[in-house]
Order: sequence, then structure tokens, then C-alpha cells
Amino acid sequence: MNEEHRPGPEWEAARFSVRYAETDAAGIVHHATYLVWFEEGRSELSRRLGLPYRQLEEAGVVLVVVEAELRYLSGARYDEVVEVWTSMRRVRSRSCVFDYRVIAATDGRLLATGSTSHVAVDLETGRPTTIPEPFRSTYASAVPAADPEG
Amino acid sequence: MNEEHRPGPEWEAARFSVRYAETDAAGIVHHATYLVWFEEGRSELSRRLGLPYRQLEEAGVVLVVVEAELRYLSGARYDEVVEVWTSMRRVRSRSCVFDYRVIAATDGRLLATGSTSHVAVDLETGRPTTIPEPFRSTYASAVPAADPEG
Amino acid sequence: MNEEHRPGPEWEAARFSVRYAETDAAGIVHHATYLVWFEEGRSELSRRLGLPYRQLEEAGVVLVVVEAELRYLSGARYDEVVEVWTSMRRVRSRSCVFDYRVIAATDGRLLATGSTSHVAVDLETGRPTTIPEPFRSTYASAVPAADPEG
Amino acid sequence: MNEEHRPGPEWEAARFSVRYAETDAAGIVHHATYLVWFEEGRSELSRRLGLPYRQLEEAGVVLVVVEAELRYLSGARYDEVVEVWTSMRRVRSRSCVFDYRVIAATDGRLLATGSTSHVAVDLETGRPTTIPEPFRSTYASAVPAADPEG
Repeated sequence: MNEEHRPGPEWEAARFSVRYAETDAAGIVHHATYLVWFEEGRSELSRRLGLPYRQLEEAGVVLVVVEAELRYLSGARYDEVVEVWTSMRRVRSRSCVFDYRVIAATDGRLLATGSTSHVAVDLETGRPTTIPEPFRSTYASAVPAADPEG
Repeated sequence: MNEEHRPGPEWEAARFSVRYAETDAAGIVHHATYLVWFEEGRSELSRRLGLPYRQLEEAGVVLVVVEAELRYLSGARYDEVVEVWTSMRRVRSRSCVFDYRVIAATDGRLLATGSTSHVAVDLETGRPTTIPEPFRSTYASAVPAADPEG
Repeated sequence: MNEEHRPGPEWEAARFSVRYAETDAAGIVHHATYLVWFEEGRSELSRRLGLPYRQLEEAGVVLVVVEAELRYLSGARYDEVVEVWTSMRRVRSRSCVFDYRVIAATDGRLLATGSTSHVAVDLETGRPTTIPEPFRSTYASAVPAADPEG
Repeated sequence: MNEEHRPGPEWEAARFSVRYAETDAAGIVHHATYLVWFEEGRSELSRRLGLPYRQLEEAGVVLVVVEAELRYLSGARYDEVVEVWTSMRRVRSRSCVFDYRVIAATDGRLLATGSTSHVAVDLETGRPTTIPEPFRSTYASAVPAADPEG
């Protein structure tokens, strides 16, 4: 198995099988699905940090996606097990950036990479706000040391 | 063209092309997509009745789906134009039932039929409520005369 | 926890968290998502029977959905863990029927029930065919004894 | 109405209403939906060029997405009419790039912009190939004169 694409210890992975509904007529996973998987990667990372994203919304703040970038390297097929490795690249007072690497668990091939940028928005006013504590400092603690932009 | 599957004048049709993302690895439209199309059929019917479903939600009431039935008769492919014919089968004070026929516009073949049952729920309380006026009577007026269960 | 909705030993469960993308503007899981979850339940059941559905397609046969029925009992929210319990109700030479019960893992409440009917279709000819061995007999062995329609 | 976001004559628009299933629990269109809309924009552009993308696949070639970039500027709600303006930025022998602007038809506000890069792949061999004629030259003819990279 090719292990080289699995990233370092600060990354967390969501792991699941490709659903039939996620494929398209070309026989592989539709490219829009990767944004859904990235989101599942963020959810898993926030769960493992002990602060599920759901709790941030319950605190009245959403992390709105303002930018996304994706590179597609290999197609995935129905029933393949995939891992969505996710890390926090940067945390600022009102924004943050996540990085992703999607890997096929069976043979370790890299399926896609990408990133998403988010701004914190107050659910009541609809306006930008600061990421509340303890979310901001916990997120910042998850930024890999080699990339200390937090 | 086979016209026999197109229903009568009380039915309204939403018409659009099959999206690539709606297909799956079997090369045809994924079966869950039809529930999304039925919903688009309901939206189109309510628009043509002059009371878009959006306005019902703005009035604080949602029509929650409580039952759905689908029969699949033929597969649809990417870029085919489909028509989602929709009619109101029955309207009661707190519930209603819609019927659907999905037809391929090119050759008139019947792709799927189905129905969905709904109950009105108050958005604030989360409890069943009556369908407010003028929605209830307008919906009732759309029930085909041959099926006067309204 | 309410355990009464969990079915017997012949049922298998797929277990996962609700994805944000699966919710809609009403704040709960969109009703079309349940057909995708049912499919994931079938996939999990076939994996546990030692004959992943993928292998049936590799043998040149697809199980086309010809009917689906769904009842919705309670809404599910983002990040809730759900279990999709699945069983084989009936297996015939060219068709089979699955039953489903979707349960919220946290409080055991029943979210939805349903069933799907399938016919075996030859991928090359596009025509109905028999479910090949060892799939047919393995599927038949999974039909609960209390419902011996196989 | 704010017309400034509508691009020039070389752009084509797909126009449709936001589906309920495309929204998420935040009340607006889920961000992955925009990749599906971009694809619908490409489909519409290729139809208006007289060479539907379906015909390219029938000729044995797919345009695989290798990169995507999206910027999200404003949320869209259920039932809003949106326009997905699409243009061909660049056409090379084996690749092409599309640009997108998604606009709310009612008030002209800009919802999202983005681009996707594609390579031509032979359906039989799975390897990169040239975009066959007449597709390549027709696509090239659609590149706006102000951006003559074709």
C-alpha cells in the first residue's frame, strides 16, 4: 500500500465507503461530491477536537464557505473505502482555512486535494463576527506546527 | 410521439434537462432524484396556482412529507428533456396528496409515477396545523373534477 | 434509550452521521436522502453476507429499483448518528424486496421506514434475467425465518 | 435591477429556480450545488453551440474535471430564479477551461463565480486524448475575443 499520501499527525480522517448515488454516468464519483466529503472531513475534525461544529451553530455562529479549490487526481468507484484527511491551515479572529486530501484506502492512491476558506457569520444579524471561544483557540491549537499561521 | 402518458388539463408540468450529476454509474438517473423532481413538480404547480410554496412557508407553515410511493418504468439519460406532471389528488384541512407522472419529452415514454402525502406543520410549534387560507381553498380548486375527494 | 424500534438479528445496520449537505432549509434531513440511505443499507447488508453488491455488477447483473415506499416519522438533524437497519423480505428468481428502518442512535426514535423492490437486469442486453448464484441463494438465506416468502 | 454582473455576448446562461433539495439547514443553497450548476452551465453553452456535450461522449471522449475554483458572494434561497452564465476561457488540443458567474435573476446580485479546468480522456483507454473535431474548433470559436488564448 502506498502510504506516502497520508499526511501527518495533526490531520484527522473521516472514513467511509463510496455510495452508489455519489457516482455518475462516467462510472466514477461525481466531482461535486468532494465538497460534501470535505465538509464531512471538517465535521470529523471538529468532533475529534471535542467541539462539534453543531455546537458552534448552537452558539449562534456559522462558518460560511467563501472560497473553495479542488484538484482531482484519480476517480473513485462505488464501494471503495475513502479517507478524507483534513487539517486546519489557518485560524484568524473571523476566518479560517481548511486543507483536504482524499485517499483511496485500498491502494493509497490520491483522489483529490483541496481547501476551503470560511468566515464566521452571526446567525441573527447575518453579519461577520469573531469565532467565539473556546472554538477559536481550540481550532488554532489544531494548526500544524510546521504551518504556524494561526 | 407517444402522447398517451400526458395527463389531463388539471395537471401542470415542470420541464427541464437531466443533469449529469443526477445520473449514476448504471448510466441512468439515480432513483432518489425522482423525489427531488416530484418536489420541483409541486413547486411548479403551486407557482401556477398563484401561490408559490415559498409563500406558505413565509406564512409559517410547512407541508411535511409523511409518505412517498414511486414506481420506476424506464431509465432517463443525461441531457434528455423530462416533464414532471403534477396534480393535487386530495386536500383536507391538515393534509394533502400529490400525484406525479414523469415523462421523457423526446419520445413520450413514461419514466416514473408516484405520489407524496403531506401534513401541514406550524413552523414555530412543530405541531400539525390547518393549511391556512387562501392556500387550502386554492389547492382544493386544483383537484381534478373526476377525483373530487377535496 | 428506546430500543423497541431496533429489529431482530437478521437485520443489519449501516451507521453514520447526518451530513450537513443532507439537510434542507426546513432544518432537517431532506426526504430524498432516505432513498440514498436505504441504498447504503443494502450495500452494508450485502457486504456482511460476504457478497458485496459491487460483485453482482461485476458479474454483469444490476438490481434495478422498480418500486419504493417510504414513511417519514421524525426529522433528523445535522450530526445526529443514524442507523439504517435493512433486511431482505423476499427473494425470487428474478426479483427481491428489501425492508428498512432508520433509527436515531442517540434516542432510538424511529425516523423512517420503507421498502424497495428490485428486478435483476442483464447489463449487456438490458433485459430481465435471473439473479445469478451464489447471490440468489445467499440473499434467500438472509430472509428472516418469520417471513419465509423466499 | 443591477445589470452590471451580467457578462458579455459570448456568455450563455442556464436559467432555473432554486430547488428545495438544494438548500441546507443554514437556509441557503448548499455550496456543493454550485458545481452542479456550473455543469448545467457547460451543458447549456454546448447545446447553444450546436454540439451538446452528450455528443462528445457519444464520440468516445469525456471532458474530465481536473480543477475547480469557486468564490461565494451571496446566498440563494429556495424558489429564487438564478442564471448560470458560462463562457469558454481557453481551448487547447487536449484541455479547456470554463468560467462561471451565477446571478440572482430577481435583483441581479452576484451569488458566486468560478472556473473549471478539463482534460479530454478517451473513454476506451482511459488516457488523455485530443478534443475531436468539430468540437475543438467550435469550442475555440466561443472564446471571447478579448481573451484570445484559444
